[in-house]
Amino acid sequence: MLKLDFHPAGRHFLQIPGPSPVPDRILRAMSYPTIDHRGPEFGALGLKVLEGIKKIFKTQQPVVIYPASGTGAWEAALANTLSPGDTVLMYETGHFATLWKQMAERLGLKPEFLGLPGVEGWRRGVQADMIEKRLREDARHAIKAVCVVHNETSTGVTSDIAAVRRAIDAAGHPALLLVDTISGLASADYRHDEWGVDVTVSGSQKGLMLPPGISFNAVSAKALAASERALLPRSFWNWAEIIEMNKSGYWPYTPNTNLLYGLSEALDMLQDEGLDNVFARHRRLGEACRRAVRAWGLEIQCADPAVYSPVLTGVMMPEGVDADAVRKIIYERFDLSLGTGLGKVKGRMFRIGHLGDCNDLTLLAALAGCEMGLRIAGVPLKDSGLPAAMAYLAAQHPDVSLKAA
Amino acid sequence: MLKLDFHPAGRHFLQIPGPSPVPDRILRAMSYPTIDHRGPEFGALGLKVLEGIKKIFKTQQPVVIYPASGTGAWEAALANTLSPGDTVLMYETGHFATLWKQMAERLGLKPEFLGLPGVEGWRRGVQADMIEKRLREDARHAIKAVCVVHNETSTGVTSDIAAVRRAIDAAGHPALLLVDTISGLASADYRHDEWGVDVTVSGSQKGLMLPPGISFNAVSAKALAASERALLPRSFWNWAEIIEMNKSGYWPYTPNTNLLYGLSEALDMLQDEGLDNVFARHRRLGEACRRAVRAWGLEIQCADPAVYSPVLTGVMMPEGVDADAVRKIIYERFDLSLGTGLGKVKGRMFRIGHLGDCNDLTLLAALAGCEMGLRIAGVPLKDSGLPAAMAYLAAQHPDVSLKAA
Amino acid sequence: MLKLDFHPAGRHFLQIPGPSPVPDRILRAMSYPTIDHRGPEFGALGLKVLEGIKKIFKTQQPVVIYPASGTGAWEAALANTLSPGDTVLMYETGHFATLWKQMAERLGLKPEFLGLPGVEGWRRGVQADMIEKRLREDARHAIKAVCVVHNETSTGVTSDIAAVRRAIDAAGHPALLLVDTISGLASADYRHDEWGVDVTVSGSQKGLMLPPGISFNAVSAKALAASERALLPRSFWNWAEIIEMNKSGYWPYTPNTNLLYGLSEALDMLQDEGLDNVFARHRRLGEACRRAVRAWGLEIQCADPAVYSPVLTGVMMPEGVDADAVRKIIYERFDLSLGTGLGKVKGRMFRIGHLGDCNDLTLLAALAGCEMGLRIAGVPLKDSGLPAAMAYLAAQHPDVSLKAA
Amino acid sequence: MLKLDFHPAGRHFLQIPGPSPVPDRILRAMSYPTIDHRGPEFGALGLKVLEGIKKIFKTQQPVVIYPASGTGAWEAALANTLSPGDTVLMYETGHFATLWKQMAERLGLKPEFLGLPGVEGWRRGVQADMIEKRLREDARHAIKAVCVVHNETSTGVTSDIAAVRRAIDAAGHPALLLVDTISGLASADYRHDEWGVDVTVSGSQKGLMLPPGISFNAVSAKALAASERALLPRSFWNWAEIIEMNKSGYWPYTPNTNLLYGLSEALDMLQDEGLDNVFARHRRLGEACRRAVRAWGLEIQCADPAVYSPVLTGVMMPEGVDADAVRKIIYERFDLSLGTGLGKVKGRMFRIGHLGDCNDLTLLAALAGCEMGLRIAGVPLKDSGLPAAMAYLAAQHPDVSLKAA
Repeated sequence: MLKLDFHPAGRHFLQIPGPSPVPDRILRAMSYPTIDHRGPEFGALGLKVLEGIKKIFKTQQPVVIYPASGTGAWEAALANTLSPGDTVLMYETGHFATLWKQMAERLGLKPEFLGLPGVEGWRRGVQADMIEKRLREDARHAIKAVCVVHNETSTGVTSDIAAVRRAIDAAGHPALLLVDTISGLASADYRHDEWGVDVTVSGSQKGLMLPPGISFNAVSAKALAASERALLPRSFWNWAEIIEMNKSGYWPYTPNTNLLYGLSEALDMLQDEGLDNVFARHRRLGEACRRAVRAWGLEIQCADPAVYSPVLTGVMMPEGVDADAVRKIIYERFDLSLGTGLGKVKGRMFRIGHLGDCNDLTLLAALAGCEMGLRIAGVPLKDSGLPAAMAYLAAQHPDVSLKAA
Repeated sequence: MLKLDFHPAGRHFLQIPGPSPVPDRILRAMSYPTIDHRGPEFGALGLKVLEGIKKIFKTQQPVVIYPASGTGAWEAALANTLSPGDTVLMYETGHFATLWKQMAERLGLKPEFLGLPGVEGWRRGVQADMIEKRLREDARHAIKAVCVVHNETSTGVTSDIAAVRRAIDAAGHPALLLVDTISGLASADYRHDEWGVDVTVSGSQKGLMLPPGISFNAVSAKALAASERALLPRSFWNWAEIIEMNKSGYWPYTPNTNLLYGLSEALDMLQDEGLDNVFARHRRLGEACRRAVRAWGLEIQCADPAVYSPVLTGVMMPEGVDADAVRKIIYERFDLSLGTGLGKVKGRMFRIGHLGDCNDLTLLAALAGCEMGLRIAGVPLKDSGLPAAMAYLAAQHPDVSLKAA
Repeated sequence: MLKLDFHPAGRHFLQIPGPSPVPDRILRAMSYPTIDHRGPEFGALGLKVLEGIKKIFKTQQPVVIYPASGTGAWEAALANTLSPGDTVLMYETGHFATLWKQMAERLGLKPEFLGLPGVEGWRRGVQADMIEKRLREDARHAIKAVCVVHNETSTGVTSDIAAVRRAIDAAGHPALLLVDTISGLASADYRHDEWGVDVTVSGSQKGLMLPPGISFNAVSAKALAASERALLPRSFWNWAEIIEMNKSGYWPYTPNTNLLYGLSEALDMLQDEGLDNVFARHRRLGEACRRAVRAWGLEIQCADPAVYSPVLTGVMMPEGVDADAVRKIIYERFDLSLGTGLGKVKGRMFRIGHLGDCNDLTLLAALAGCEMGLRIAGVPLKDSGLPAAMAYLAAQHPDVSLKAA
Repeated sequence: MLKLDFHPAGRHFLQIPGPSPVPDRILRAMSYPTIDHRGPEFGALGLKVLEGIKKIFKTQQPVVIYPASGTGAWEAALANTLSPGDTVLMYETGHFATLWKQMAERLGLKPEFLGLPGVEGWRRGVQADMIEKRLREDARHAIKAVCVVHNETSTGVTSDIAAVRRAIDAAGHPALLLVDTISGLASADYRHDEWGVDVTVSGSQKGLMLPPGISFNAVSAKALAASERALLPRSFWNWAEIIEMNKSGYWPYTPNTNLLYGLSEALDMLQDEGLDNVFARHRRLGEACRRAVRAWGLEIQCADPAVYSPVLTGVMMPEGVDADAVRKIIYERFDLSLGTGLGKVKGRMFRIGHLGDCNDLTLLAALAGCEMGLRIAGVPLKDSGLPAAMAYLAAQHPDVSLKAA
């Protein structure tokens, strides 16, 4: 067996913004023997997860599950709805929005990139008015889709998707709305149907608490209709056959059986806790995290409190401090993994994940690791962050009613 | 937890031609907590599996690992090497060859389908002379690739890939040779470099003994060069970036971490046994299986002994017997899963898998389940098949030298 | 990790009469993190398993669960009810009865050993009339307990415990009835209350499908009363404190938490299948096994069809054949573990376990391994045993109604 | 499956002084299928763990492994070496010493209990001079054994065993020295041979990081000789047969196979880290914990800094505070399990475990949970304890050299 933790002893703290820590229940569910994907047990499993995942997306429409990681579901959203040369309006929330745009280019689409300028642009959410303005200009409806990232994993900003919907409607524009909530789903509130999203893209390794390897497209009727006209070549990603076979709980090709076991367990866990409780838990953890960062006297990457992410917090370093050097100290000395700065903010910040199966003590442990590492690295801190975070968590704890299942 | 075996007690026998039974060692390796795919432990894991998998393909060239199931790797092979409208010569060995052709069509390629006529065509391997003849006719080199299936999972025929290579060379044709050995790899001998294959496609859930969810492209220098000119749109499947990042053991997007743990363990297991021993074991199991079928007086789907598959055996039903009704009895009464007949032979045959982590007693158990089910279904059998299979296995057992690791 | 199967590939077949194969569901349940044995979750677990295990013993009286293997529960039964120098009447059913007697001697008791003479005595069950006769002679009630083995694991004989109870009653003797059903419980029918047993001893690694490590004393009111007078020194095994603390689901000292997780799962599995179905399944497997042995022309160790064990079958070797040499061949060539001959029958027989989580194909695989091994060893066989076993199993299969949970 | 954590989400923190958190590696090792305890693989496993465990006890003499929990190994130590009515000198370090004395009484021994008076007596280690004085008085050598607890789990005091040895030698007394290091072994330094201990008792669920269920007697030649004369009745615990069969890696009765898998893995982990590093890690964690307690302004149960335990820290509550009410708040709100006060100090203190597989962040998380709970309970704290603990840990971190295996 390969060594999977280089530290001599004790538990690893995985506080990157995904993959998030996979609960024991899920790891064990996944370790059941693989079964026949054409047999009756599989059909029962398929129907359960296909129905259950809809509740997480808050949709009554089909959710396509791919045996592929999240990047694949990005490609699926584009390939099923668009044709070579189509213009798509994409909003630059951060690094992942940039990567999605790059993908659009590679697939032969013409992405237009909107956004506030410079690094500061990455500290705020989607500006829906900019989208509205651009769509109003597009009188001939050259723009076929608007693509936005709900929770930008590179910065810790959770944009207002309903506002984007309103912007498109206000402009009276027929473009499809494609949304990436890979890191938002099941940690931050998300409403595919209510918000009028046409394709929602997500993945397994974040709020769903699974390892990476399966990904999702929630698909509106309008998107389905578009897919009949869309000319981008596609086979593996093609919705029609999958949705058809899913009716009986099966897939046209071999699905990722063991991850579906895990998904079944994850859906049970989310339902047991209640989605609203899940969202409240993450909001509370996010606020505690930010209080610690403020106590340290460091800046939070997200500059607009209205769009603070409940999934992760970006912590900016003072001028002259290499965030990755700090992360290295923290990892080596305290067995804590944090997210690196990506793209425009590389070396300028690190990211603390508090998504998925996170609770108070896990977050506080992560904050303690950050604080010790920052001190060892010589980063001047105004104060200890732990007392601030603890005061908030102790005061704001929801009533817990513990009981057996 | 969902019920994953509807039978009240006892172990399930999974003898479909994939997914094959996943050994406990691998299931347990896969249940380690997911780690940071950008951290140092992951890099060590990545380098190990990327190097190790080359030995299985018998190649010194890059092997791309996708966080997607095998069908995705089919698409990757085509998308990386071909351009819209390209003609590809595909050989109809059976159902999976047919599906691959269908995919080529969907991607905008022009597949030409060679093969012997009718159902009988599915009972023999690739006829290399037909390929040579067709290529000789293609003086202007319109054909850009020859696509063949090494081990046709729908029939139990393992074609001679070296002969295909010789046919292409004899015709002096520059077409790429793309080979699907999804179900053959690591059960049947396969030699990517020696046989001059340009892209070999494989998956995890067969000879590699893993659950489905990762898949492979082994890539020749010629294929890499072709990929620079190929115009099919691609992003997720694009080799260049993946091969570049793989140099340090990482991937450009989130890999399927827990399946890579499993792959690491599978590579250790295959190396411990020795690939030649693995191949000999499967040949031996295949022969024992066929002896039982012959004792029953039933026909083997593969009509050419030179290309019997060591991976699976197709068993043809007498006229008037519905193979799927027999399979249902066997499954319900004996908790044994067999493969259904696909495409042209639906209802006419069932398939017994003896690939991956299979041994003598597991095969004999499967044969016993088949025999009892056939009798219950009223299928007339010449004789019991077990004594024939047992006689062969008892006589032909290799020397076992058991020792501690 | 240590190598736990010396064979290069494929599944091990564990067909010794215990430990029996542990189902995946139980292994996974056992791998949950250990919890605080004084916390609220543990109390819920404790109450569940303490209540559930009573149904398996068919008792309304306390069942004490020890964090120790079965041999410990033998000692507990004696130490809680007897005083130094007490006479106990023990019946020699086979090797395990002999070991229990040896233990009684070591603890300072005076065991009297009843039984039919010689090796033949080991081929029949408890002769209740011999017990009755001896008790009638004991007018002064020097005998304090009668100790019998329900399912003698060394021979494959399941004695009639109700008959022993009737014998004691007929003699009007006040002796306690202590019964070992370590290998019988949950494979063979057992009725602690109805049969008037005072202490029933059992273990985890047989019909309960768990690894070894926990063991049981089911305790009658009469036994409890005796324990207040019993003078053998005891502390770890002492019932009183355990039974008192068990009322709230806890134990006086650290229990074997992870095995209790497994027990909880095992109880669910047995309840799902239904105890009567479990017993019928084992009777059916036993009969199939014996038909194969008879087809081989070999003798069954148990000479009285009225007491054939549904748990295991002892297979006698012809004169001059070393049973352990045959077992060695079978193990090395076919990765099948069988039970050795013990004590008086060492080298003369081997034992095939069909207890716990066994089904038709597993048994047939084991029979195939035996048959091939016997042939390799040169043991003359009248005929193949597989057709006989298969014919019975195919004809007698219970109606299976497969459904999702 | 039973619900094993009543909290809706996030990881449980198990910081009781045993069972300690079981690392994933060990849980997975334990979930391998149970094998034949008479087969060749088992023998290899047995030899490995029997040899490896000696290094942990620092002995060249036999270590007996019981398939029973730690309390059983206490009984084994007494039952193998003593005779009914023997006087044993026991030292009252705390609750567990008291329980061991109770056991001695139940087994018919005559324990004499030495110790400093009252609750204060539980705040200091063994006073070796008191033992020496008592032994000098025992001119006729009525005292057959001196029994002391190395690490008293109820208080957090680690006594000086070498000093006890010197005291016995100084008195020129032939009594055996029996030591309980159930909670000390593999977290605190322990030297069976060098310290001249005759029987060392330990268990699996503390420093060895396993679930409860196996326990140990390390046995000196003098103890072995004594066992030949000792008259306490014994069978299950009897050393002689076990030690004899252990020579080939087997046990006379069914061992706790799956826990032995775990032990094999634990031994590998301890060897990889190095025992001296393990001990240094625990000393460091203990000091960090105590600094937090002092910052809170609370008293540490252990009043003598020379015998602070590296395994756990007892935290005393101010007058009028019910420690168990505080523990309940901490458990319910923060999913953190702490040890209760036992015996004389019930309700007066709680215990923080930092034994076994504990690292910096886990300890800090536990301290954060304690601090928040204490505040919610209204316990007045002088200051936050986290900064003090973090300052120490950040300053004193050993050089970590991370590398692949």
